[in-house]
Amino acid sequence: MLKWGVLAVALAVGGNATAQQRETVDLEMVGKIRQQAFHQSQVMDTFSYLTERIGPRLTNSPAMGRANAWTRGRFNDWKLDNVHDEAFDAFGRGWEFTSASVEMLGDRVQPLHALPKAWTPGTSGPVEGDLVQVDIKKPEDIDKYRGKLRGKILLLGQAREYKRGTDADSHRHDATSLEGLQEFTLPKDKDVLADRAKRVKEYQEKQALAARVNAFFVEEGALASISISGWDNGIIRVAGGGSRKAGESVGIPELAMIAEHFNPLARALEAKQPVRLRVDVAARFTDQADQPGYNTLAEIRGSSRPDEVVMIGAHLDSWHSGTGAADNAAGVAVMMEAMRILKAAGAKPKRTIRVALWSGEEQGLIGSQAYVAKHFGGFPEPADAAQKALPASLREPTGALHKTRDYSKFQVYFNMDNGSGRFRGIYAQENMAAVPIFQAWLAPFHDVGATTVATRNTGSTDHISFDRIGLPGFQFIQDRLDYFSNVHHSHLDTWDHAEPEDLKQAAAIVASFAYHAAMREQAFPRKPEPQPQR
Amino acid sequence: MLKWGVLAVALAVGGNATAQQRETVDLEMVGKIRQQAFHQSQVMDTFSYLTERIGPRLTNSPAMGRANAWTRGRFNDWKLDNVHDEAFDAFGRGWEFTSASVEMLGDRVQPLHALPKAWTPGTSGPVEGDLVQVDIKKPEDIDKYRGKLRGKILLLGQAREYKRGTDADSHRHDATSLEGLQEFTLPKDKDVLADRAKRVKEYQEKQALAARVNAFFVEEGALASISISGWDNGIIRVAGGGSRKAGESVGIPELAMIAEHFNPLARALEAKQPVRLRVDVAARFTDQADQPGYNTLAEIRGSSRPDEVVMIGAHLDSWHSGTGAADNAAGVAVMMEAMRILKAAGAKPKRTIRVALWSGEEQGLIGSQAYVAKHFGGFPEPADAAQKALPASLREPTGALHKTRDYSKFQVYFNMDNGSGRFRGIYAQENMAAVPIFQAWLAPFHDVGATTVATRNTGSTDHISFDRIGLPGFQFIQDRLDYFSNVHHSHLDTWDHAEPEDLKQAAAIVASFAYHAAMREQAFPRKPEPQPQR
Repeated sequence: MLKWGVLAVALAVGGNATAQQRETVDLEMVGKIRQQAFHQSQVMDTFSYLTERIGPRLTNSPAMGRANAWTRGRFNDWKLDNVHDEAFDAFGRGWEFTSASVEMLGDRVQPLHALPKAWTPGTSGPVEGDLVQVDIKKPEDIDKYRGKLRGKILLLGQAREYKRGTDADSHRHDATSLEGLQEFTLPKDKDVLADRAKRVKEYQEKQALAARVNAFFVEEGALASISISGWDNGIIRVAGGGSRKAGESVGIPELAMIAEHFNPLARALEAKQPVRLRVDVAARFTDQADQPGYNTLAEIRGSSRPDEVVMIGAHLDSWHSGTGAADNAAGVAVMMEAMRILKAAGAKPKRTIRVALWSGEEQGLIGSQAYVAKHFGGFPEPADAAQKALPASLREPTGALHKTRDYSKFQVYFNMDNGSGRFRGIYAQENMAAVPIFQAWLAPFHDVGATTVATRNTGSTDHISFDRIGLPGFQFIQDRLDYFSNVHHSHLDTWDHAEPEDLKQAAAIVASFAYHAAMREQAFPRKPEPQPQR
Repeated sequence: MLKWGVLAVALAVGGNATAQQRETVDLEMVGKIRQQAFHQSQVMDTFSYLTERIGPRLTNSPAMGRANAWTRGRFNDWKLDNVHDEAFDAFGRGWEFTSASVEMLGDRVQPLHALPKAWTPGTSGPVEGDLVQVDIKKPEDIDKYRGKLRGKILLLGQAREYKRGTDADSHRHDATSLEGLQEFTLPKDKDVLADRAKRVKEYQEKQALAARVNAFFVEEGALASISISGWDNGIIRVAGGGSRKAGESVGIPELAMIAEHFNPLARALEAKQPVRLRVDVAARFTDQADQPGYNTLAEIRGSSRPDEVVMIGAHLDSWHSGTGAADNAAGVAVMMEAMRILKAAGAKPKRTIRVALWSGEEQGLIGSQAYVAKHFGGFPEPADAAQKALPASLREPTGALHKTRDYSKFQVYFNMDNGSGRFRGIYAQENMAAVPIFQAWLAPFHDVGATTVATRNTGSTDHISFDRIGLPGFQFIQDRLDYFSNVHHSHLDTWDHAEPEDLKQAAAIVASFAYHAAMREQAFPRKPEPQPQR
């Protein structure tokens, strides 16, 4: 039924021109995909609903539940197969906040901009107290403050010097920066065991200190604590505090404040000027006990090789201060749109194309990792409690890779989570055999700016859950726009900082990559299987 | 007593090298000034007190009164002469706000960032209402909304597209940009009468519409109105609304909201989704009747020609959302520091050096203009009420320049009001005879980056009150830092965005310029006297 156009691809790998096998590209289908993606797009409808109707989607919050339900609804509207949520266990409790205000009292009454850290308690109405500077870097520091914090509001840490932004606020790649990505940097030798031991120690000490400090502030009867936002320029960059785990101390109400309001408070205290604040945070835990988290899944079932699965995905959860737009309603809207495009374009893939909207990404790829472990395999869970408490990347090897029946049939996973900027190519994640395939698949998108296949790795989001066990998992090269200057994990991560054209372009490329992965004759090539490190 | 070092200055003006008369520079005094400015600086103490102890200083607000008193106190501490406040008439009422909160209600409760416009009323406690989009561009638009606004909160205008910042957030001059300032652009021919008539008409229509709209919203019983902040990226850029004049309608509570929170509200209303808000603004007028404003003045009385006055100054008033740091505690701290430096350096100037801390600058150079009119002269006040209601720059000529006894004795005025960035030179304001003088005076500050004399004009602040009547008035070329990207009239106009070293450098240059103006043999040269335009 399909007429296969062919783009011949020959490339230089490693300095020698080597004729690679031809990778077929269905240009007729690419044309249909582009027509849907560029001229009948619904990507902004999806993006708008997620950001402005549902809003921020903290893992296990009520809004995240609404997002799971709404995305399932859209998948059903589009007649996808096997639409469902899949639980992963014991994530923790749900939490949400509805308001937060801080005021400086005294001679000069002024509203101060701050938002609560996730999984910290509210204040049960306005509280007023004198501000005290507290700087605890190690357990011994706690003693300095014992008996001194009752009824106080705590300013955590020192004033931070303003960092002047001499670089452009928003960036797009140009030919030079894309060429720079073509270089692969060899890893430096390191003592893996010593390095891991050091990082484990740091992690455990940090965790233990945080728990002690939480409990100490509660014991002391301090009213609330205030940290400085991670960024300057009035941006509130805030993640989690307290604890999401039932039975652990959630500490006292904790807020992140803009640097421009935090620093004057710190300077006043250092100059021994009294400062009094009023704090009012409405926040609540929505569960008593730990709850599972939920990934949302849907698929277009393959016509002739349904057990062979191509996956695309992005995380649906977000932090709570903005509306989770670039991080990551953008990725979700693109992945959903890619599925819609494939249905609308009449694609009948031989293999199954499955979309996953992950949860718990922001807390450590939890949703995708659980899914991969259940469906494809993983390294054994540690028996030891201390090891269990570590993030997967810090645990000692537990033995050989365990594989499910579906491990060998799995094809490839494509993820989007580098903000909302345009695709400029893809990271091949050191999978050298993938390079010519990606080059062929990108060819019909050179005219919309996606040209580059970089051999290097990119990290830190849900494709790593696949990559870690030797399954092909990839992320695209994206224009970073103002992702790392304004929006990442900040209250400015909102609709307006995205570009509709960039999301349309990305959806077309994802749809085409998924389609071609589902149609190619051979299985998608893999890297050497990962070995547990010593 | 003083030993005069001499820097010979020869310059090319207009392409031909012309030997200019020698301008004497007292390098010994420059050395004393630099010692005080760079090694015994108090400029940051002054800057810190103004921004973080007193805070924003809206004209005629209680904080502005505290600033007048505190600056007088410092001048007295430094043993300056003739320290006093000088009133200018009928500025209007005082106003201050202490808190402002806006919350989105309904399915998704969210705090929204907004601050009140100056001289608008508070809400007398929290009010809740449905949000209605109102877009009044001309008087006829009012009718569309008649009878529909009772109990509503008004969203004024449309969503605005995000403007991506592809330029650096913070800028310093380099050799190329400084060279660019050396070019003078000839004014284009224009029909002065027609141009003025057009601008007067626009101004009057705008004023009349604003007053009508204020009254209309009150008549209708709307609860509050919300405009979009002038800038993106979470910055609240806000000036005045309502009216500061007793007897005029102050309208309803009006706030400026960050674009990232305003735009979603506009999009929701355009999509016919109901939006409900809670608004709570604590703001108050501190006077029933119009009050005079106050400039603060002080001087070092001249030893041999006390009637010949050199002035330096900056405006002490600010807008209310930040702490008036770059605009203009920076200028005030530098001018105060220059006076302190001169006293500490033991300067005994022949002429009087007077410092003025203006008020009412942000509302149209009102304090400096009144001062100049009283002390030096001006064009006659119009008799006609309509003419009187216009800003000075739009009025019809009223006759010949009136001069006081001190007009001819006045020497020169130096102002600072282009943010907190380092001095890189000075605008000569088309006073060609001033060019070689400034070049000579700048020579001992080339090593701290101040090198450039630009012939061009620079506008829009208090030196214009002098320039307008033919008295020499100047402003310095400054590095703009993030003045026009983050801080100008915004809630980020705070301490942290300034650089201590830049303020120290500026204070040294002002002190030296003032001293040399007070010591030079001849009077400071003037431009041709301004003629009333037709």
